[in-house]
Amino acid sequence: MEIVNRIPRMQAISRRLRKEGKKIGFVPTMGALHEGHLSLISRARTMSDVVVVSIFVNPIQFGKGEDFDKYPRDLAKDAELVTDRGVDYLFAPNRDEVYPKDYSTYVLVEDLSDKLCGLSRPGHFRGVTTVVMKLLNIVRPNFCFFGQKDGQQAVIIKRMIRDLCVDTEMVVCPIVRDSDGLALSSRNIYLNKEERSAATVLFRALNKGKQLFEEGETEAARIIAAMQQVIEAEPLARIDYVALVDPETLEDVYVLEEDRKVMAAVAVYIGSTRLIDNMIFGEKPTFTYSEEDL
Amino acid sequence: MEIVNRIPRMQAISRRLRKEGKKIGFVPTMGALHEGHLSLISRARTMSDVVVVSIFVNPIQFGKGEDFDKYPRDLAKDAELVTDRGVDYLFAPNRDEVYPKDYSTYVLVEDLSDKLCGLSRPGHFRGVTTVVMKLLNIVRPNFCFFGQKDGQQAVIIKRMIRDLCVDTEMVVCPIVRDSDGLALSSRNIYLNKEERSAATVLFRALNKGKQLFEEGETEAARIIAAMQQVIEAEPLARIDYVALVDPETLEDVYVLEEDRKVMAAVAVYIGSTRLIDNMIFGEKPTFTYSEEDL
Repeated sequence: MEIVNRIPRMQAISRRLRKEGKKIGFVPTMGALHEGHLSLISRARTMSDVVVVSIFVNPIQFGKGEDFDKYPRDLAKDAELVTDRGVDYLFAPNRDEVYPKDYSTYVLVEDLSDKLCGLSRPGHFRGVTTVVMKLLNIVRPNFCFFGQKDGQQAVIIKRMIRDLCVDTEMVVCPIVRDSDGLALSSRNIYLNKEERSAATVLFRALNKGKQLFEEGETEAARIIAAMQQVIEAEPLARIDYVALVDPETLEDVYVLEEDRKVMAAVAVYIGSTRLIDNMIFGEKPTFTYSEEDL
Repeated sequence: MEIVNRIPRMQAISRRLRKEGKKIGFVPTMGALHEGHLSLISRARTMSDVVVVSIFVNPIQFGKGEDFDKYPRDLAKDAELVTDRGVDYLFAPNRDEVYPKDYSTYVLVEDLSDKLCGLSRPGHFRGVTTVVMKLLNIVRPNFCFFGQKDGQQAVIIKRMIRDLCVDTEMVVCPIVRDSDGLALSSRNIYLNKEERSAATVLFRALNKGKQLFEEGETEAARIIAAMQQVIEAEPLARIDYVALVDPETLEDVYVLEEDRKVMAAVAVYIGSTRLIDNMIFGEKPTFTYSEEDL
C-alpha cells in the first residue's frame, strides 16, 4: 500500500491505471476508520482491480462551533488498520493543496441539501458535494462507495453524480451496527460510558417506527410521535429531528402506502454529540452487525 | 462527422476513444457558429486526434428578459459549416436530457462570477460553469477550447478547472475580429446596419485605452474616462461597464505598472443588443482578423 499525499501524484496514478484498463474502486473517508469503512473497502475489493481510500477531514463541511478541530485524526493508525485489507493507495492530501488561498469553486445540490441535517448544518452538504466532486475528478474511479449510515449524504451525492454526468458508478453499502444496534460512526468515540449506553436510543426509535409500519400504521405523524416518545424517554438525548421521507426526494411523507419505501431518519444529540441514523421501511434490513470490535 | 444527440451515446464514444488512447479536443458552443468558433476548431484539430464540438443553448445562463428565446438556432446550418473542418462529432443534446425535471446541481465560482458581466447578469456564470462542468464530464476531453472574446468566462472556467482538479487542459484562443475591428459574436446578427456600424465603438474604445497605456498613462481612472468618452460619443451606444482589471483575479486595477498585464473589458448596449469585448494591455495582440466572410 502506498500513501499518497500530493494531488498531482494521485492524478498520475489514476491516469496510468485507467490507461492500463484497471478498474478503480474509491472509498472517500474522513479517517478515524471503523468497521463501517472497512465494509466499504471490502465491497470495493470485490468489484475493482485497484482500491483507493482517501482520508481528508474536509474543513468546508463543518460549520462554526462544530467539531472540526477535535475531529479524530490518526493517519498512522488508519494506515495500519487498512493494511492487509487490499487497499492499494491511501490518498491523504493536505488542506492547503485541496483548498489553496484563492479557492472559490463550490458544487451545490439545491433543495436536497436544505432538508434534514441541512437545516441544523447550513452549508454542510455544499462542503460535502464540493470535496466529493473534487476527489472524484482526482481519482476518476469506476466505482465509488458510500455508507447508508449517512443516508441524506448518499441521496445528495447520487443526485450530483446523475446531474453532472460524473462517469462513475456509486455503490451505497449497508449500515454496520454494534451488537446493541448503535450505528458505527467516527463520532461515537466522543461518547462517555453513560452516553454510549443512551446512544442506542436512535436504533430503538427506528425499530419502534418500523414495528408500527409493519403493523399497518399509515399515518406518518403517529409513527413519528412514537419514535419521538422513545427518544424523549432517554434523559441524555435531545432530538434534532425525527422524519419520514421519500428515499429519493427527501420530501416528507405524510401517508404511508404499502408498496412505497420510506426512509425514517433521526438526528439526536447525546450529551453534546450529534448522532444520526436511518432505516428504510419497506425493504429488507439495510444494515449488518459488526463482526468484531476494532 | 457524426451528429450525436443523446448523452449516453456521447459518453460511450468518449469512453471508447479514451480507451484507445485517442486525444480528444472539445469545443463547447451555443451554435450560431462563426469564424471565431472555427478558429477554436482549427486549434483543436492541431492538438487532438478527435474533435468534438457541442452545440447547446444553455437556458440556465440566460437571465429573465434576456435573449434565450430569440438566440439564433440553426443546427443544420451549423453542421454544414463545420463539415470538412475536421470535426468528428457534433454533440447537440436536448434541453430535457441536460436538465431533467428534478435537476438540482449547480457549480459556482464565487467572487469572480459576481464581477463585470456578473453584475448585470446575475446567475449567468453559475449557469456557464454548471453546463461546462457537465459537458466536460460527458466528453472527458484532453483539451478544451474557449475564446478570449468571453474574457471573464475564460478566467472563471480556468479557475473552476483548477479548483475542482478537472483532468483537462484549457486552451484560450485569440479573439477573431471583422476587418473593422468588431469582435465576432453570435449576437452581432441582432444588429441592424446603423447599429453594426456603431458597434465598432467597443474596439475603438479599447484601442484608445491601449494607446494611453502605451504612452505611459498609469492612472486607470484616466484611461477609463477616455474610453468612456469614446463610447459616449456614439449615439447608439450605452455603457454597461468599462473596467481595467487584473487578468487572473478580475479585481479592479487602479494604478498601472510597467510589467503587469491588465485586462481592459467593456460591455456596451448597441440599441438593445449587449456586446462585450476586451483587450489585454501589456502583451502582444490577443486577437486576429477574420480571413473571410462566412
